[in-house]
Amino acid sequence: MVTGDPIQIVVLGLGQMGSGVVRLLQERVGVQVAGVCERRARDGAADAGTVAAFARRLGVDLSGDLDALLERTRPQLAIQATCSTVRDAEPELRALLERGINVISIAEEMAFPGYSEPAIAAALDRLARRHGATLVGTGINPGFVLDLLVIALSGTCRRIDSISAQRINDLSPYGPTVLSGQGVGLTPDAFAAGRADGRIVGHVGFPESLSLIGSALGWRIERIEQSCEPIVSTVRRETPFAVVEPGAVAGCLQRAVAWVDGRPAIRLLHPQQVHPELAEVETGDFIDIEGDPDIHLRMRPEIPGGVGTVAMAVNLIPRALRAEAGLKTIAELPVPAAALGDMRALAGLSGSATE
Amino acid sequence: MVTGDPIQIVVLGLGQMGSGVVRLLQERVGVQVAGVCERRARDGAADAGTVAAFARRLGVDLSGDLDALLERTRPQLAIQATCSTVRDAEPELRALLERGINVISIAEEMAFPGYSEPAIAAALDRLARRHGATLVGTGINPGFVLDLLVIALSGTCRRIDSISAQRINDLSPYGPTVLSGQGVGLTPDAFAAGRADGRIVGHVGFPESLSLIGSALGWRIERIEQSCEPIVSTVRRETPFAVVEPGAVAGCLQRAVAWVDGRPAIRLLHPQQVHPELAEVETGDFIDIEGDPDIHLRMRPEIPGGVGTVAMAVNLIPRALRAEAGLKTIAELPVPAAALGDMRALAGLSGSATE
Repeated sequence: MVTGDPIQIVVLGLGQMGSGVVRLLQERVGVQVAGVCERRARDGAADAGTVAAFARRLGVDLSGDLDALLERTRPQLAIQATCSTVRDAEPELRALLERGINVISIAEEMAFPGYSEPAIAAALDRLARRHGATLVGTGINPGFVLDLLVIALSGTCRRIDSISAQRINDLSPYGPTVLSGQGVGLTPDAFAAGRADGRIVGHVGFPESLSLIGSALGWRIERIEQSCEPIVSTVRRETPFAVVEPGAVAGCLQRAVAWVDGRPAIRLLHPQQVHPELAEVETGDFIDIEGDPDIHLRMRPEIPGGVGTVAMAVNLIPRALRAEAGLKTIAELPVPAAALGDMRALAGLSGSATE
Repeated sequence: MVTGDPIQIVVLGLGQMGSGVVRLLQERVGVQVAGVCERRARDGAADAGTVAAFARRLGVDLSGDLDALLERTRPQLAIQATCSTVRDAEPELRALLERGINVISIAEEMAFPGYSEPAIAAALDRLARRHGATLVGTGINPGFVLDLLVIALSGTCRRIDSISAQRINDLSPYGPTVLSGQGVGLTPDAFAAGRADGRIVGHVGFPESLSLIGSALGWRIERIEQSCEPIVSTVRRETPFAVVEPGAVAGCLQRAVAWVDGRPAIRLLHPQQVHPELAEVETGDFIDIEGDPDIHLRMRPEIPGGVGTVAMAVNLIPRALRAEAGLKTIAELPVPAAALGDMRALAGLSGSATE
């Protein structure tokens, strides 16, 4: 038997990911959602009423004011699901770390914040250490398929010549924000214009995945090359939120290459499109390591992105609570396991994890 | 630039695994083989001359006396490749831990020593803590394919109903000791007799793999069922060390099931035979998780056992040196990565891992 209060968790953001985290926390043992912070709940916000109704249905305490929520709930850990970049994540992270609250962030750049924002990363690390808190970024990609899983496989290798990893997935389940960020439905010309003006962001996280692999293996990455091309459809494709006519863009094909010792050592490929089956593309996650031994991993279909990210964030809780203070990457902690037992015990806070 | 002396490593055992570890250490940066202990090198041992000649070819300092070797070399870490059971491993582990030397063991039962020998495991944990040393078991199986990799995938799951993992491999490359331990070449009757009298050991490590998964997920395993059947060949198969006539045994089919909450929650299957291709069996490592999401992982061919175990042992060095003192399982440390940079930096002992 585990005794003691459940671990108090605050969730930042009540979008698709944040609400998924809340629901999963409500199914797990030994944790409790102390409250949710969502900017759209602030007084006067346009959809404050909608968000408040959603929070009531979820049965959570909603606030638009992070400081007030933290003061009231005094959580042990926060899960941040509000943004993608380190720069956007920083103010919330500071508010949390200054109170000694451990943080799991699903902001893509937080998978390896030292790549995009080394100064902010160093400052967050100092702040976390000073207040005895752990800060770690996670997610399915970056955070697992194209980095942590590659690293795990690499441990069985005597020698590695090159690494190639692909994530081929289906954008059909996604909503309008994701689809427009990938340029779905545009003409190739409009896609090119959207790339040029930054409206089409594509996948965020390749440099972070490459940096995770490089630092774990001790490979110094000399440079990273990235590209993003439209996937032009030859057939009509339709989802609840997008129509792609023949000749229009069904998604993005992104590539990245990391150069080590003058050779292209790590190649990542990530084509995302709506209804890939209409182009006879089979989805999946694929990792190939050339070395001693060669390793060829296939997962069909791919691990779903939304579910996987929500699960990683929640399953990481015991690891984050056990970790030493400071900014950590996912590769520096024991690999997260599905935390199906009592989280207090899995976190080493009391008793046995299996009782 | 990393400066300072290389990390001094002692290897225990100069068999197939131990000599593989020595060779790999000689290829890596920032580590040095301080010496090798091998019982067969003791004065008067039957093949002392052969072993000494082999050690000379490898260019390592050989000793039959562990205490004298440790006194002379004062290593920071030892890799134990001498045995399979906790009971057999214990005396060497005590000698190492009492000197504060960190230990990586490839003894199969050391992957989760608390299963077979809880009292010895607890005593080793106390001893390691008292002397500030880390003790951890590793290998490809147990240690990776049927446990750590399953745990890593589980982290992407919201819910898990059941887990099934298979390792289908080829025994053809192995020597006479392994083949006779699997009953290769015997009649089915002789196989049954060999199982009964303990000569046919088959794979050691199923309860350890199941315990690793259970403790990581917080699943209390109620009981473990194991079986071992002969794989009877319908065709002639031949290796340099064994001949299998039609009707004779080509290998072992082992199964294990772990029961959790009254249901068979984890199933492991491990058929090993010589020349599986002659029976149209394709080798590989396979993991299937039924839950939310379902995950289906395939690696063809399987990660080779010998190479993989040697690599895991060496790649674990930086993790073992960074870990807190005590007896740890592989799932409690950050997942080992191919340690291709300077091991001193990867272990956090100096400078950057990539310079």
